[in-house]
Amino acid sequence: MTKQDFRIVGKSVKRADVIEKVTGEGKYTGDYHMPGMLYGKIKRAEIAHAKITRIDVSRALAYPGVKAVLTHRDVPRVLHYGSPHPRSASCTKDQYILDDRVRFWGEGVAAVAAISEEVADEALDLIDVEHEPLPGVYDIDTAQAPDAPQLHDVGPGGNLVIPPVRIERGDVERGFAEADLILEGEFEGGRPVPTYMEPNVCVADWDGSNKLTFWTSTQTSFMVRGALAEVLGLPLNKVRVLVDHMGGGFGAKQDLFQHEFLCALLAKQCRRPVKMEFTRRETFIAGRSRHPFRMWLKQGFRKDGTLVARDMKIIFESGAYGSHSPGVTNVGTASATSLYRCENVRLDGRAVYTNTPISGAYRGYGVVQTYYALDIQMDEAAERLGIDPVEMRLKNAVREGDIAPSGHPIVGCGLEACISHGADAFDWAGKRNNPNRSDPRNPAIRKGWGIGCEMHGSSAYPGIKEQGNATVKMNEDGSVTLLTGAAGLGTGAHTALAQIVAEELGVTFESVSVVHGDTDVVPWDIGAFASHTTYLVGSAAKIAAAELRERVLARAAELLQESAENLGLVDGIITVRGNPGQSITLVEAMGPTRGVPSEHLIASGSYTPTKSYSFAAHFVEVAVDTETGIIECRKVMPVHDVGKVIHPIAAQGQIEGGIQQGIGHTLTEDYVIDRTNGRSLNAGLVDYKMPLSMDMPDIETIILEAAPDPGGPWGAKGVGEDPIIAIGPAICNAVHDAIGVRFHHYPITPEDVLKGLKARREQP
Amino acid sequence: MTKQDFRIVGKSVKRADVIEKVTGEGKYTGDYHMPGMLYGKIKRAEIAHAKITRIDVSRALAYPGVKAVLTHRDVPRVLHYGSPHPRSASCTKDQYILDDRVRFWGEGVAAVAAISEEVADEALDLIDVEHEPLPGVYDIDTAQAPDAPQLHDVGPGGNLVIPPVRIERGDVERGFAEADLILEGEFEGGRPVPTYMEPNVCVADWDGSNKLTFWTSTQTSFMVRGALAEVLGLPLNKVRVLVDHMGGGFGAKQDLFQHEFLCALLAKQCRRPVKMEFTRRETFIAGRSRHPFRMWLKQGFRKDGTLVARDMKIIFESGAYGSHSPGVTNVGTASATSLYRCENVRLDGRAVYTNTPISGAYRGYGVVQTYYALDIQMDEAAERLGIDPVEMRLKNAVREGDIAPSGHPIVGCGLEACISHGADAFDWAGKRNNPNRSDPRNPAIRKGWGIGCEMHGSSAYPGIKEQGNATVKMNEDGSVTLLTGAAGLGTGAHTALAQIVAEELGVTFESVSVVHGDTDVVPWDIGAFASHTTYLVGSAAKIAAAELRERVLARAAELLQESAENLGLVDGIITVRGNPGQSITLVEAMGPTRGVPSEHLIASGSYTPTKSYSFAAHFVEVAVDTETGIIECRKVMPVHDVGKVIHPIAAQGQIEGGIQQGIGHTLTEDYVIDRTNGRSLNAGLVDYKMPLSMDMPDIETIILEAAPDPGGPWGAKGVGEDPIIAIGPAICNAVHDAIGVRFHHYPITPEDVLKGLKARREQP
Repeated sequence: MTKQDFRIVGKSVKRADVIEKVTGEGKYTGDYHMPGMLYGKIKRAEIAHAKITRIDVSRALAYPGVKAVLTHRDVPRVLHYGSPHPRSASCTKDQYILDDRVRFWGEGVAAVAAISEEVADEALDLIDVEHEPLPGVYDIDTAQAPDAPQLHDVGPGGNLVIPPVRIERGDVERGFAEADLILEGEFEGGRPVPTYMEPNVCVADWDGSNKLTFWTSTQTSFMVRGALAEVLGLPLNKVRVLVDHMGGGFGAKQDLFQHEFLCALLAKQCRRPVKMEFTRRETFIAGRSRHPFRMWLKQGFRKDGTLVARDMKIIFESGAYGSHSPGVTNVGTASATSLYRCENVRLDGRAVYTNTPISGAYRGYGVVQTYYALDIQMDEAAERLGIDPVEMRLKNAVREGDIAPSGHPIVGCGLEACISHGADAFDWAGKRNNPNRSDPRNPAIRKGWGIGCEMHGSSAYPGIKEQGNATVKMNEDGSVTLLTGAAGLGTGAHTALAQIVAEELGVTFESVSVVHGDTDVVPWDIGAFASHTTYLVGSAAKIAAAELRERVLARAAELLQESAENLGLVDGIITVRGNPGQSITLVEAMGPTRGVPSEHLIASGSYTPTKSYSFAAHFVEVAVDTETGIIECRKVMPVHDVGKVIHPIAAQGQIEGGIQQGIGHTLTEDYVIDRTNGRSLNAGLVDYKMPLSMDMPDIETIILEAAPDPGGPWGAKGVGEDPIIAIGPAICNAVHDAIGVRFHHYPITPEDVLKGLKARREQP
Repeated sequence: MTKQDFRIVGKSVKRADVIEKVTGEGKYTGDYHMPGMLYGKIKRAEIAHAKITRIDVSRALAYPGVKAVLTHRDVPRVLHYGSPHPRSASCTKDQYILDDRVRFWGEGVAAVAAISEEVADEALDLIDVEHEPLPGVYDIDTAQAPDAPQLHDVGPGGNLVIPPVRIERGDVERGFAEADLILEGEFEGGRPVPTYMEPNVCVADWDGSNKLTFWTSTQTSFMVRGALAEVLGLPLNKVRVLVDHMGGGFGAKQDLFQHEFLCALLAKQCRRPVKMEFTRRETFIAGRSRHPFRMWLKQGFRKDGTLVARDMKIIFESGAYGSHSPGVTNVGTASATSLYRCENVRLDGRAVYTNTPISGAYRGYGVVQTYYALDIQMDEAAERLGIDPVEMRLKNAVREGDIAPSGHPIVGCGLEACISHGADAFDWAGKRNNPNRSDPRNPAIRKGWGIGCEMHGSSAYPGIKEQGNATVKMNEDGSVTLLTGAAGLGTGAHTALAQIVAEELGVTFESVSVVHGDTDVVPWDIGAFASHTTYLVGSAAKIAAAELRERVLARAAELLQESAENLGLVDGIITVRGNPGQSITLVEAMGPTRGVPSEHLIASGSYTPTKSYSFAAHFVEVAVDTETGIIECRKVMPVHDVGKVIHPIAAQGQIEGGIQQGIGHTLTEDYVIDRTNGRSLNAGLVDYKMPLSMDMPDIETIILEAAPDPGGPWGAKGVGEDPIIAIGPAICNAVHDAIGVRFHHYPITPEDVLKGLKARREQP
């Protein structure tokens, strides 16, 4: 199909759910209310590491309106993953629903169901917990010390979540021997949290046949179903997980949370529906953050800029439990095989337990951390070698056919195109060579420009197995329903899927409805993560739509006495090539006679993905106030290769949102844990600083359909995670361009800037 | 598959919904409550035939709590069928949602939505309706008179609903010429109504995208969807019809009722959910009854009992609108081609409009009326020819290969088997030859024994087109979900379907769940009627399950390195023939690796039925009190051939329920309309007399698997309607046996008995 043939794909059609979103009519999990519903609350530990010696719930149970209290004595003692993500083989089950041991400050130790949230909250204070403190592990160094207190009895030991991930290619020592310049540095990243608008919330209800119906704000409804069934000892057809609208997830809502198990158990005990909803504070304490990390990176370059060796050790801080650490460690380590091509790499990735809140999945996991370091050191090398940063990147950028982090050759590589196109569009050379870098209104403000690059895979890491499924059924009037398990986090994924079905089948966009978010009725789905929904489920939906189209045309061919190959189907009209007068409508071809459809038009598609990569280069202008230390990100030009774009405005929205979050990570966002006792210091949006709309830069998004992936629908690739990756190093590099100070960490605070400037002034 | 191989089919497994039924937890449409929900009520005409000259709703609209009032001026003026049943070609659209003309007493003329049922009810009294009376048509004779007032402008005219149905086979005149005995009689039937426990109820809710979600107690959710979409001008993917549990329907809940359109329109106008629920009184006035009928029947017999000619004219009273009259007339007429074989038949069937409540679909429609007359006249012939009634029936009973009412040869005819087996089991000869017929405690009470026969088709009338569909998906743990559009009227149909899936697929009954009653997610379904769900949808489910089984065994064959033909799958265990140690479980074969199922196991089956017939002979003992005229039905032995029985207790339940309703029809039930003005005289369960449990006879059900149908799952045939058909003539014939009085009508009241006895005594 040539470009001009698209009627629906590639157009920014109006989202079907737009009215219910703006009117507040759309149902989020928190909107579910049922007669007799109770409210659950969790008693949280006020110590980071301890053995519980006694819990007395008698006062709480006696409190009027309290219907049930659960402690570790009352719940199944089954170890589970916490993360229901498809597990790498090395993953360890390390969580109990409730344990007699506390591993982080704020961990749940008991749960209450009561007639109102207020009564439940009041009852929490009536639960008496006594404990015996244990020595705490509050940072990566302590965790790795030979005599460190051990958080878990399971796993490989030494506070490691999984055995170290080690990747070696080529001959690193020989590479360094060939290098003209060797750079070595330590990099660190803080603890940003995905501050989704909708706090975690779930509602559990059991019926008389012992079936659990469970509404929850999750990206992975089938994984939640599986984990609940496993831990509660139910067959999968006795657990129904439902999710309609979601107010964001950003990866963190892939986990199976403690409150979800407790909500189900409270509802079972009370034989009444129970709702549990996090406060904003709980989304910090009991939610999931990006993994804090520390990384040692040594790279060797030839004079001409060619990267010849890379040696890397990265340690991710998992917090009290494993959650997504296996995935983050694998992805974060494997990703360092690529982006900038390097024949000789030696990588060591680890994740360690500490007595801090749980790190989990968050947009661009692993990659954000690794590529932050790679791209800053690339900039340093350019500076040291006197090569323009853009030239430096073009020289080293990964290319078509190079081995991707997945171990497969890359098919569809648009990185060079993004860098080159962006450098021109941004006027990189003109800006960087501009000698006037001071703000005319305030000479203390210095401007700078930077570049960062990224690549991100869908279904593209070693050991990952994926499968996309979709069912399409056509009604008697030619309107169509797509059934999919893919969650709608708010990204517009369902709109893109409907576009794909409409385009492939040959009906209008409006005639396609989407049913989703009910594990009882939709096909199995792996979950919405890894930027893969459009790519993976879109491909499955396209397969199903193609089958229906074929069946429709076969029948139309009979009716019209034409060969099916000679027929077209566009906007619900079947036409005969070369005979425009002979067209018939879908209803005429497929519609009912005596109330019965001509045949039952339902088709299911299943897709096992290849590996696909998306690419981007971000160009950034910053203004650094040398008096206050405040960094203002003024302009961003993100240039993305996402293959075929299904819905331009939605893709642009993803990119802009990623940039906003990336700015937050890089400049202001850090969930701070007191490293002496594990207490949260800023669990709330007053003290945890996200960029607001007034903090947003001008963003001029450029989407290139540079390198379509043959595995995606019409070459579409992922876009969800990409935009959060390159923005960080681009800002950091621009700050260096502005004030000559090189930072190796995020967030870069005003205090850091002032300290950096002071140190630079004091340099000999 | 031989009989002993069945593990699940043929067993009375415990219904999955039994606990929610008995605890009251199961959700019926009336159990749906939504925030902001309004309540709708209908203003009903107090005249049977009139032109509305003025409706003033201003006082109602001003009444506190009233949110909307609709009259014929406010609703789309679109003619519709009323019955969303697959239409025969001759069917006429004759209903408006609201019209400026009233055609029966109690017809809705306006609708109110208010904050409570009470307020809505009060507002009805504030609607002022003025009308100009029109001459009324209150009976069949008036309707057919040449100068009769015409109820409708559409249709063939002469108050006919459809053109007369005429069937002629052989040479009737020659048949009569060959006859030794010619009988001629007039038969009549009253107006029984299906007094389902759950009055009609619906809830309508529109979302911001102009999509209507519609919960309603219906047997035909896809037909409701289609009719709502057509009349409201919506595509089918903008109408979602939902029905979970139902408290019965018995055929009547196939219609698309006036209140359903009005509920949808009120909700649209108010932008709030609206519920409308019939009072018991409204289920009479605005519900659907069996068609009252009058029939002239002339048959000729040879001396040896052989039936040689049949001439019949039947007129069904449709009431004010057509509804199912086309189907009833076709079925009621065509059915008279069969049951008792006759080479020479001439049949004329008609339906006429009258200004009375609407007749609709009701269990055994058309056939109940026709076979009542056939079987009574057969009894008369036996008496006149001095042949035992059982012998008479055996001589004339339709046989394998005879032409069925559908026009096709009968495959699977068990009628002779039912008659013969029953005569033995009932000790027919012994009872009938017993000279002592008086009750020992009350000599005024006389006992008698009678027989009635029936046949009933699934998917088996001329012009009927059917299609069964089902989707089966397997979860990663081997549990299974069946998605079906088949409604669950309370019959246990979903249990039977789950049994079929479990048996065919090779899993336990408990591992199969059923999802139904949501047009957005389940495959298209024709509706639950015509006794066809197990036969039609069961066949489709079996096809889908067989496909899954094949895919499971293909994969297991790979894993076990065996040929698939050599594998068995029973209760979720895959075994190798001749190698018992090598078995693997379904989970081992299909289950997830790294969280992802080995393949996506979903399959859809579609089945276009052949024609199938079920058969029965009912043997009855009655006791007639010659002083009070009360007929007591004391014992019934129903002998049914339903092919392969899927769930014996459910089948028996159908039979017992049918007998209870049949006793009501024959002896006590009649919804009486004043033939001078069209007013209802007994719209309620105080004055309309159903048999209660204490009125039930001893029933000894015998189910023969005499003649399996090759088109049904393992030979299963329908059973839903059969039991209501033969019980009526069997009672009537037994009454004659007891007191020597022959009745040609139902219900046979005590007054009728006393009159009949008096007439007999006064006979010369």
